[in-house]
Amino acid sequence: MADLPTIPIVGGTGALGAGLALRWAQAGAPIAIGSRSEERAGEAAAKLREQVPGASVEGLHNAEAAQRAEIVFLTVPFRAQSENLNNLREALRPGQILVDCTVPLAAAVSGKATRSLGVWQGSAAQQAQEMVPEGVTVVAALHTIGAPTLADPAANFDEDVLVCGDRKADKGRVARLIELIPGLRAVNAGPLEMARIVEQLTPLLISVNVRYKAHTGIKLTGLPAGDHWE
Amino acid sequence: MADLPTIPIVGGTGALGAGLALRWAQAGAPIAIGSRSEERAGEAAAKLREQVPGASVEGLHNAEAAQRAEIVFLTVPFRAQSENLNNLREALRPGQILVDCTVPLAAAVSGKATRSLGVWQGSAAQQAQEMVPEGVTVVAALHTIGAPTLADPAANFDEDVLVCGDRKADKGRVARLIELIPGLRAVNAGPLEMARIVEQLTPLLISVNVRYKAHTGIKLTGLPAGDHWE
Repeated sequence: MADLPTIPIVGGTGALGAGLALRWAQAGAPIAIGSRSEERAGEAAAKLREQVPGASVEGLHNAEAAQRAEIVFLTVPFRAQSENLNNLREALRPGQILVDCTVPLAAAVSGKATRSLGVWQGSAAQQAQEMVPEGVTVVAALHTIGAPTLADPAANFDEDVLVCGDRKADKGRVARLIELIPGLRAVNAGPLEMARIVEQLTPLLISVNVRYKAHTGIKLTGLPAGDHWE
Repeated sequence: MADLPTIPIVGGTGALGAGLALRWAQAGAPIAIGSRSEERAGEAAAKLREQVPGASVEGLHNAEAAQRAEIVFLTVPFRAQSENLNNLREALRPGQILVDCTVPLAAAVSGKATRSLGVWQGSAAQQAQEMVPEGVTVVAALHTIGAPTLADPAANFDEDVLVCGDRKADKGRVARLIELIPGLRAVNAGPLEMARIVEQLTPLLISVNVRYKAHTGIKLTGLPAGDHWE
């Protein structure tokens, strides 16, 4: 556990970010919770330290959190994605990996959560790649992981996280962090452009969830055993 | 088995159509294999009768096959979808259900199979709904089922088929046919417009298949037990 890097979460006070922070803290990783409000970040950090005694958790401004480690998670709603990326322009450094978890749900403009918005660049992740400073790489992941399941320490996962990015080595580093959460398997879904499809899985699952009153996830069948990321 | 309806498959000599015909014939359903060429339909029917002794199989022109039962499967490549729907205009009757399995892969215009084409109506299935005669209902399904797995009688499925359509009762009738194939579970993915997303699962799985040298399928986790379609 000693060699786990700090995991900075921009938007770490939101439902997805807080849930990830909880799970990663349980796995023993130091967490840097970022928020637009340092006060709310501090409150979230205090709450997490209560939930996971002994956890190493900081609450920071987003820009400061983003400088705590090489791999930074962006877990804000689509409505706030561009604003956050603008704010990170001065904070991110070449060599960092930004893991974009954004889903362009039509809910961002008061539409349905079972529908999505067209993003000019093709996907929210590709928009992020256009907006980050040169030398920062975007990887897309974690779109289909349910915040309610993350937030419930007793709930177990048994599902896949489809990871998109242009370099396998980058995706592999992100995969190691994802797989710190028990029951999650990171699957290589191809280049970043595949985020056009992977981001759509969220409204699809929401549509199924409504019909079945369930919290569904995705699992791929037919994958070979063994560690794809070695 | 006596009460299984005939299953007409337009494009039944293609890889997906022939594979479905094999599995449904094994399940005891009478099959009407449709093709542009009655001769090739007849050859495919003869081959299927060899593979499944005692099977009830006809080889017919597509238009004739489409009149054999209320629920008709369309399993042609996207390139041929419009032409086939034009040809079916005089054959289909109000009350019929057309199950569209088309995936608008960019391969249709010599692009990559990991990319898709934008369809003006939103999806191939919605294009089909626009083109069928009034009173015919389109249901979208079976996009992610691999033809190689279907064609191998020894291969077992353990995956889901996401079914899109505007009426649950129609989807339920299609679900019964899909679930005649052992190991397939039909999942209600919502209205026909969700085909915009479900059709994209195929290029996504192809992208994963390339990277893992595998034949992957989709399975949803977290669905409640019990028969959704009752």
